[in-house]
Amino acid sequence: MDPQQLAEASARALWEQDRASQGLGIGIVIDGVGPGTATLSMVVGAAMCNGHGTCHGGFIFALADSAFAYACNSHGQRAVAQHVAITYVAPAAEGDLLTARAREISRRGRTGLYDVSVANGQGEVVAEFRGASRTVKGMLVPEESGE
Amino acid sequence: MDPQQLAEASARALWEQDRASQGLGIGIVIDGVGPGTATLSMVVGAAMCNGHGTCHGGFIFALADSAFAYACNSHGQRAVAQHVAITYVAPAAEGDLLTARAREISRRGRTGLYDVSVANGQGEVVAEFRGASRTVKGMLVPEESGE
Amino acid sequence: MDPQQLAEASARALWEQDRASQGLGIGIVIDGVGPGTATLSMVVGAAMCNGHGTCHGGFIFALADSAFAYACNSHGQRAVAQHVAITYVAPAAEGDLLTARAREISRRGRTGLYDVSVANGQGEVVAEFRGASRTVKGMLVPEESGE
Amino acid sequence: MDPQQLAEASARALWEQDRASQGLGIGIVIDGVGPGTATLSMVVGAAMCNGHGTCHGGFIFALADSAFAYACNSHGQRAVAQHVAITYVAPAAEGDLLTARAREISRRGRTGLYDVSVANGQGEVVAEFRGASRTVKGMLVPEESGE
Repeated sequence: MDPQQLAEASARALWEQDRASQGLGIGIVIDGVGPGTATLSMVVGAAMCNGHGTCHGGFIFALADSAFAYACNSHGQRAVAQHVAITYVAPAAEGDLLTARAREISRRGRTGLYDVSVANGQGEVVAEFRGASRTVKGMLVPEESGE
Repeated sequence: MDPQQLAEASARALWEQDRASQGLGIGIVIDGVGPGTATLSMVVGAAMCNGHGTCHGGFIFALADSAFAYACNSHGQRAVAQHVAITYVAPAAEGDLLTARAREISRRGRTGLYDVSVANGQGEVVAEFRGASRTVKGMLVPEESGE
Repeated sequence: MDPQQLAEASARALWEQDRASQGLGIGIVIDGVGPGTATLSMVVGAAMCNGHGTCHGGFIFALADSAFAYACNSHGQRAVAQHVAITYVAPAAEGDLLTARAREISRRGRTGLYDVSVANGQGEVVAEFRGASRTVKGMLVPEESGE
Repeated sequence: MDPQQLAEASARALWEQDRASQGLGIGIVIDGVGPGTATLSMVVGAAMCNGHGTCHGGFIFALADSAFAYACNSHGQRAVAQHVAITYVAPAAEGDLLTARAREISRRGRTGLYDVSVANGQGEVVAEFRGASRTVKGMLVPEESGE
């Protein structure tokens, strides 16, 4: 498999093995994956908002965290979060389409660093997320699976 | 209302107004609240775990984030997350009872800082969370409500 | 003054008013500033290294933090750090030329968010820094100074 | 050596081997070390302040970062910073005595987590720092040195 095929196979494996990765019941959709990257989106539903119609930060985090998970697992080897941080830059409102784009900043030894930017439909930044991952034992995609 | 009564009334208001605060469908329970503090817990279910029986970080985050929300809203005035970070220290397994204890480090002007420690039933630290909040317009508890 | 002139005047003012901004005695040089951006560099000296010839993280932080300061003060209004985080990605060695490039992610109300990437002479990422700033009272550049 | 003796020997070794650890030329003093802990202090000098007499965040960071370094190196094995974050809670002024108290939150495998609280002479919190460390090859204190 080439890196792009590996990224797509890893995403399928992550989705199938982990019920928690299947959008968390909040309608997260995988728009695309690549080597070290992932783009996921969701529409802010009423149940995700407080009384004032503003999306809870926890759901924005869940979207960004999922994009991080798909990106750091895109090389076929299982990886888990070690440290993550999110800064909420602007509020998101009911009905907003939020898109999280994850990209790999570095990968060195067992450690990876990923930035995820979450924007609304107008392209305005809603939150910036940064996550550090560590690979763990086990492959998402069997090494022989490409043959 | 005294500070403890205010904390309890704020927790009730947060619970009632925000469906997202009602345990996120993952069985989060409020063990107690006080001025600047909150203790929440949940049992790690099978659906929260990956194929190896290890709890996804996103659920540990959700528990810590909820404790942070109850703590920073415990003074009656609405507050929202501005920046949060979590470090995963040790894995949690299916069946573990996780308890998140949030405490206020400082509150100054509109900004608050809160630490949340998540431990398992043996008292071992699973994750450490730190959140900065900003108050926003609006009271959770009407000021006259104590009379 | 246009935004670029304002950025340059702000950098001059920051340098003159704050002895701490003058490279901290570790040879930090300002390569360039712009609206929301700043590029600073330094050469890793022997005194910055531990017994194994690896640069102490504190000096890498100082370089990134200075770039952040020049970037968040580039609009003429004084701004101070509120929350900063750095992840060390790869070691830097004695003699390395380190360059920190700061860019503005967002600016909204009194709050700004800046990313600073520190790379060595080969373009390899050494550290990633993220800083949130808040504006405070006072202008770095008198508003009439451009006339 | 018992853990306390090891902590003291490690602190002496760190001080002697690393010129950067010797207070950075800003008068940092080691008040005490123990297994997983370190207390360091400094007085805010005029050169550390901006035009308004407020201490630059970079110096507060340097104090906290040094306390973190002594704490994570207190077990005899060399450790380096991997990820650190600081939140500035209240300003410090010229003449303030700042004390940084570092304590170990967890140590597991090669990874350690440390919190450092920086307070002024009145005991008010000025900044909260959290650092993750990784052990590297090499002992600060030769294993036979206690005999």
